[in-house]
Amino acid sequence: MRLPFLDSVQVRTMVEAALHEDGAWGDVTTGALVAPEQTGSGVVLAKEAGVLAGLPVMAAAFEALDATIQFRPRVWDGGRVRAGEEIADLRGPYAAMLRAERVALNFVQRLSGIASATARAVELVAGLPVRIVDTRKTIPGMRMLEKYAIRVGGGHNHRFNLADGILIKDNHLAALRARGLGVADAVSLARQGAPHTLRVEVEADTLDQVVEALIAGADIILLDNMSPEQMREAVSKCRGRALTEASGGITLANLRAAAETGVDLISLGALTHSVKALDISLDLTPEV
Amino acid sequence: MRLPFLDSVQVRTMVEAALHEDGAWGDVTTGALVAPEQTGSGVVLAKEAGVLAGLPVMAAAFEALDATIQFRPRVWDGGRVRAGEEIADLRGPYAAMLRAERVALNFVQRLSGIASATARAVELVAGLPVRIVDTRKTIPGMRMLEKYAIRVGGGHNHRFNLADGILIKDNHLAALRARGLGVADAVSLARQGAPHTLRVEVEADTLDQVVEALIAGADIILLDNMSPEQMREAVSKCRGRALTEASGGITLANLRAAAETGVDLISLGALTHSVKALDISLDLTPEV
Amino acid sequence: MRLPFLDSVQVRTMVEAALHEDGAWGDVTTGALVAPEQTGSGVVLAKEAGVLAGLPVMAAAFEALDATIQFRPRVWDGGRVRAGEEIADLRGPYAAMLRAERVALNFVQRLSGIASATARAVELVAGLPVRIVDTRKTIPGMRMLEKYAIRVGGGHNHRFNLADGILIKDNHLAALRARGLGVADAVSLARQGAPHTLRVEVEADTLDQVVEALIAGADIILLDNMSPEQMREAVSKCRGRALTEASGGITLANLRAAAETGVDLISLGALTHSVKALDISLDLTPEV
Amino acid sequence: MRLPFLDSVQVRTMVEAALHEDGAWGDVTTGALVAPEQTGSGVVLAKEAGVLAGLPVMAAAFEALDATIQFRPRVWDGGRVRAGEEIADLRGPYAAMLRAERVALNFVQRLSGIASATARAVELVAGLPVRIVDTRKTIPGMRMLEKYAIRVGGGHNHRFNLADGILIKDNHLAALRARGLGVADAVSLARQGAPHTLRVEVEADTLDQVVEALIAGADIILLDNMSPEQMREAVSKCRGRALTEASGGITLANLRAAAETGVDLISLGALTHSVKALDISLDLTPEV
Amino acid sequence: MRLPFLDSVQVRTMVEAALHEDGAWGDVTTGALVAPEQTGSGVVLAKEAGVLAGLPVMAAAFEALDATIQFRPRVWDGGRVRAGEEIADLRGPYAAMLRAERVALNFVQRLSGIASATARAVELVAGLPVRIVDTRKTIPGMRMLEKYAIRVGGGHNHRFNLADGILIKDNHLAALRARGLGVADAVSLARQGAPHTLRVEVEADTLDQVVEALIAGADIILLDNMSPEQMREAVSKCRGRALTEASGGITLANLRAAAETGVDLISLGALTHSVKALDISLDLTPEV
Amino acid sequence: MRLPFLDSVQVRTMVEAALHEDGAWGDVTTGALVAPEQTGSGVVLAKEAGVLAGLPVMAAAFEALDATIQFRPRVWDGGRVRAGEEIADLRGPYAAMLRAERVALNFVQRLSGIASATARAVELVAGLPVRIVDTRKTIPGMRMLEKYAIRVGGGHNHRFNLADGILIKDNHLAALRARGLGVADAVSLARQGAPHTLRVEVEADTLDQVVEALIAGADIILLDNMSPEQMREAVSKCRGRALTEASGGITLANLRAAAETGVDLISLGALTHSVKALDISLDLTPEV
Repeated sequence: MRLPFLDSVQVRTMVEAALHEDGAWGDVTTGALVAPEQTGSGVVLAKEAGVLAGLPVMAAAFEALDATIQFRPRVWDGGRVRAGEEIADLRGPYAAMLRAERVALNFVQRLSGIASATARAVELVAGLPVRIVDTRKTIPGMRMLEKYAIRVGGGHNHRFNLADGILIKDNHLAALRARGLGVADAVSLARQGAPHTLRVEVEADTLDQVVEALIAGADIILLDNMSPEQMREAVSKCRGRALTEASGGITLANLRAAAETGVDLISLGALTHSVKALDISLDLTPEV
Repeated sequence: MRLPFLDSVQVRTMVEAALHEDGAWGDVTTGALVAPEQTGSGVVLAKEAGVLAGLPVMAAAFEALDATIQFRPRVWDGGRVRAGEEIADLRGPYAAMLRAERVALNFVQRLSGIASATARAVELVAGLPVRIVDTRKTIPGMRMLEKYAIRVGGGHNHRFNLADGILIKDNHLAALRARGLGVADAVSLARQGAPHTLRVEVEADTLDQVVEALIAGADIILLDNMSPEQMREAVSKCRGRALTEASGGITLANLRAAAETGVDLISLGALTHSVKALDISLDLTPEV
Repeated sequence: MRLPFLDSVQVRTMVEAALHEDGAWGDVTTGALVAPEQTGSGVVLAKEAGVLAGLPVMAAAFEALDATIQFRPRVWDGGRVRAGEEIADLRGPYAAMLRAERVALNFVQRLSGIASATARAVELVAGLPVRIVDTRKTIPGMRMLEKYAIRVGGGHNHRFNLADGILIKDNHLAALRARGLGVADAVSLARQGAPHTLRVEVEADTLDQVVEALIAGADIILLDNMSPEQMREAVSKCRGRALTEASGGITLANLRAAAETGVDLISLGALTHSVKALDISLDLTPEV
Repeated sequence: MRLPFLDSVQVRTMVEAALHEDGAWGDVTTGALVAPEQTGSGVVLAKEAGVLAGLPVMAAAFEALDATIQFRPRVWDGGRVRAGEEIADLRGPYAAMLRAERVALNFVQRLSGIASATARAVELVAGLPVRIVDTRKTIPGMRMLEKYAIRVGGGHNHRFNLADGILIKDNHLAALRARGLGVADAVSLARQGAPHTLRVEVEADTLDQVVEALIAGADIILLDNMSPEQMREAVSKCRGRALTEASGGITLANLRAAAETGVDLISLGALTHSVKALDISLDLTPEV
Repeated sequence: MRLPFLDSVQVRTMVEAALHEDGAWGDVTTGALVAPEQTGSGVVLAKEAGVLAGLPVMAAAFEALDATIQFRPRVWDGGRVRAGEEIADLRGPYAAMLRAERVALNFVQRLSGIASATARAVELVAGLPVRIVDTRKTIPGMRMLEKYAIRVGGGHNHRFNLADGILIKDNHLAALRARGLGVADAVSLARQGAPHTLRVEVEADTLDQVVEALIAGADIILLDNMSPEQMREAVSKCRGRALTEASGGITLANLRAAAETGVDLISLGALTHSVKALDISLDLTPEV
Repeated sequence: MRLPFLDSVQVRTMVEAALHEDGAWGDVTTGALVAPEQTGSGVVLAKEAGVLAGLPVMAAAFEALDATIQFRPRVWDGGRVRAGEEIADLRGPYAAMLRAERVALNFVQRLSGIASATARAVELVAGLPVRIVDTRKTIPGMRMLEKYAIRVGGGHNHRFNLADGILIKDNHLAALRARGLGVADAVSLARQGAPHTLRVEVEADTLDQVVEALIAGADIILLDNMSPEQMREAVSKCRGRALTEASGGITLANLRAAAETGVDLISLGALTHSVKALDISLDLTPEV
């Protein structure tokens, strides 16, 4: 499997900021109790099953604190682990491993939580030609890593931010209506004003709006909070003319039903805004 | 109610970073469709019941993007809202409100999710002399705000990071054992090496270890993954001599039982590492 | 005319960095010679004809140094000026205006140079349905502003960076060939791996490659260094199936000829990598 | 030849910022098409003749992205290349070389453009005892590198910023006149207020002003927009008493004539504000 | 001796900032006079006796500038040196050593000055069970390093900042009095509002206030500007109930007397706000 | 009196960093005890006589924390105060004033300490045509402010850093000697390699070296650790040909004697590396 790209310069910057947030001017407990020359080993363990994401960030956290820590992953991002499975082992200065532990785990637990949730969603739609995609509902400062975890989990990314995707929402259409303009004008203005490299996506709440958007020439139509029946009909109208994205009100419970309507994409905000961390621990053993 | 302190300089810095993350070199859709001179109004709505946290951050997000946006909160941090209740209204340049919307919501939804979860935990232990406290299992970069949301929700903060609290864990004790030292040495070294302003907390997995820690002079004893019976006995041993903190394996389901053991503190990592965002929306209306 | 968006938070950050670069720990000459209480007025003058861009940056430079400087533009970004025309006047502390002068001019001269060069290119293709677009050949650190100046000058933006546009170059195709894969695989992999919001652009050096790219389903075909005859034939093959972008070897001298081939887009690296600054000066007058 | 100093810490910072600007959260095309384990080689080629500057920056760009890329320069900064000449070769992960390519080229093309233009100016005055010097008309954020390129091209640096050189301009003199003071007061105040390590330079528009400045004790006199005849006379008056700097209105066409007047220094803003990038390319070849 | 912890990531950041502050765009003298290939050796010498602190920072300064400089300390932080004693030797590029010299010395001289002053204070109270502690009267930006130097010199740290220690000062008590509240309320509110990991310290100016604070349950009582007699009496009242800290008006002259009163802690602001740098020099020798 | 320039953008940045260093995630004591709506007033008092510097920094600290704090200085930088004199009063939110207090005082106490020490040195040489100048022996990160305080105290600045002044030290001469070059070569190389805006200063340890430097054409000669007799002779040799700077081993005790030798400049490292803070306090009073 080819791993998604992860910018190592940004990872180092984020890891150093997190170590500063958690370490500030030092670890008073470890500083008082652990001799600097003491070494040890450690094992990173999965305490529940899931899909891992963020091991390069964990590695970077240990390296940033002390470059002599040897971190050897046994699985890598994208790997599935069972409860109790060893994820990695490490060896090095004991105090340094203790100081980096929480930061390393905070990253890898959240990212693995996202990847695992994404993988569960992807499995639920197995066999159907649909993409699970993310949203912009991410934790401020973590978007790059969270969108990476989505890809690691088998999902796909929607636009990264407001600058690299066109999505004409009802709020935009309302602003145009106030000036006497409609959906066709919206699509035309978007094509005129935005880079030619971007497709135009339009939000539709009703089937009439779907038809309007199609006529206006939208490349992608976001079906907002539609019932499966509406989605099915929308998909049938759009086939061959525009991609369809189901959005709003979709949970693991109704995900398969939504996917079976034939939509091309399903976006799930909960993958990032309401995700459970994957339970992962680090067991350290001092060396005599 | 007195609101917990929130550092406005840091809030501004975080908000600007988040706007950059989400906006980068501009909002191509809004830029193409919305005239700069167009104005509008908006209403922030709770879509589910909960306790709000992060309204000052939301206000800062709108102000950072455009200082002419008027943001008027109807409730403030710590306030409880019902589903459908109006949280705030705003008025100003329509394009600017659209651009700041997602960032403002991402902050307030997560922080309100934390405050709401904390409030639920606090309610579950109502009438008992116990504090719900947080952990260091926070999202990297968000610790200051997440610990603020814990306080807003009625919880209390544990140490902020490794530098401002002493917690002697089994890993530290293992390191000392490897050098022939015990718990009493640990507490003594910690008092010697750390500022006198800090209490000494010691982790104990068994009742024997609780007794050892007491004898060693610990100020606080962390009862790690103990059964209610063990906790009750530990509490009885510690009464008047040390605070007790229950930690590990505590969920909303067994929280009341844990509290009834008489522990002084219960720490809940899930309040920050696995929290559901509170559903909040922003409805915008353009002005003709 | 609706002005392109310019992120004011980023502008302030860039202006402060530039003032620090130029001012460091102070202006020794002005500090020694000009009394702090001395005030004055100034006139920003075009010394040659052109299209202005960067006046908000100029305004921000004066404001960052001293918020009491009043900067009143007479034209605004996108405006055309003749040699000798007054662009803006200002009034305020004389020393502060002297200190900010060079930074303010450095920004506005470069950005107006880009806007003016873009406007000249746009004029040369007047009446033809073609877009003048920029490239990633910008000065490091200045891309946001330089791409803004392109838009101010009447051009359009190509992708901002590697993350927000798909461009399959010969280097990518060579890497695939080494693994036994072809253009169709390239387009398919790109659609699979990248967000659905992005179109797929493929570089072609020959007409055969144009046909290959069309068959592969490219949305946009970059015609690299082709003669007008080749371009004309490529355009005729692509009509209704893909956009065409002429790139490489196009100067003001042959721009009209390239545009007359019917291509949809012409990208010009020289608009940013080799542009002449527009000559603009600031004349200051002290008040008695 | 001894190379001018280039601060490696600042270079690394600038290169990382530029990679972030161009790469953001990843290269979607390369990420989708190029296998991480694929390696390749590359050749940096001069597409036109010139003097190189910025190869350490290019090297830093490749190293920052992936420390395993081997970058071997065949010439180094200050070296002259012919069109078609190989500048460097590199080998390493193919995807990483693709991602760093544009950033590396953007730096080296601009800096080599500046060095080449400087070298042309220096050649034009060959044999005459005159220095070609730069100005503060640089691109914001690039001054350190641009002034380095000037030195690489055989030119000399004028003051770096307002803090490290005294230049009394007509604007300063006007401010003093408004308070009843003259050039002699200006020079005296400057000597009094500024560090003793700095010489005092005074701008003069006329021969009378040259004489005034000489009498006032200026160390350097800037001859602003003077004709060759005026310059010659100014030089004769200043000989042995002050250095002379010709400034304003000097192009490659009249540079030799200006130099032949005997001035000590000629400052050329166009070397940085209006320079053409040197055409340099990177040809990459994947390895099977 | 176990050395106090020093965060290497922060040290690197501070050293790079200091090198930028001192080096900016280069060392014009060294750049003009010293050939890049010239190497040399150096000896760091104590010019007066003292306790060293900051050698890791000195090492980081040389490494940040040029990783090929070999810096070999002969003593390490906490070591005592006599006047004339060699502290370290180094070898490497001569120009790089010259450029880093001042920054390296500025750090190590100030930190060694603090450590030496602390050690003198510690010696003055030898044999007494008292801790010499620091204050928040540090140079902005240097607190982490200055508090480290205090520990190196044998002192202990008071709270690092307002967030990690509770100190109820007269100003706080005045605010409470204005609302009809007293010391007991203050201690109670502090325990309620602050993390349980922190002890509560209360400032007292009189013996009556000491008693009040004791009754209120303060863990630590700051005896502000008291005479030895008052301190002695306060200590006797507090024994076994609260720690006592002497603060205000204590100099080396009366330090022993203060310590003999039996106080547990003596805080000395002058250790950081008014300290003399330790005289240390670097002698460099070029190699032929 | 005309105040030296102080860059307000940099001041704001430094103040915010210092507030973060001292406040981090909040002031736990004040947060727990002081109601947000409580207001108060304060008086800044000189506890000893001196010359003030840093009041704009103090003002910026209060403003950065809470823009509604009104800070009214009664004297301003450069003003002399007696012990007990009121420096400023302030009024605003009580909690905010408490939080900013220490940061504001830390800046103003150190800078006033430097200004006061400088003023004492300047007074000691009253009536003699000599400048008291500073060195690069400043606290890392504080150089801009410390050199400002020197000017406020009546001193003058030497070069700010390695980039804006030429000082040929014995270490440079040794490097040249190793290549068979002498002082004349040194001066010539410096003039050739450095900007023409800088004077050339050469260090001399003996009278012979003074003569050598004069012959070589040095503009300024640093007399290193010379006796008054040597200095007097050096001054007599240099009169009219070069400025002389006395450096090394000069204290307040022998400063007048050094000045009476006729040297133009005396540099005193102790003004910044070993200065005593001026004792200044802030008395706060809550409002009922």
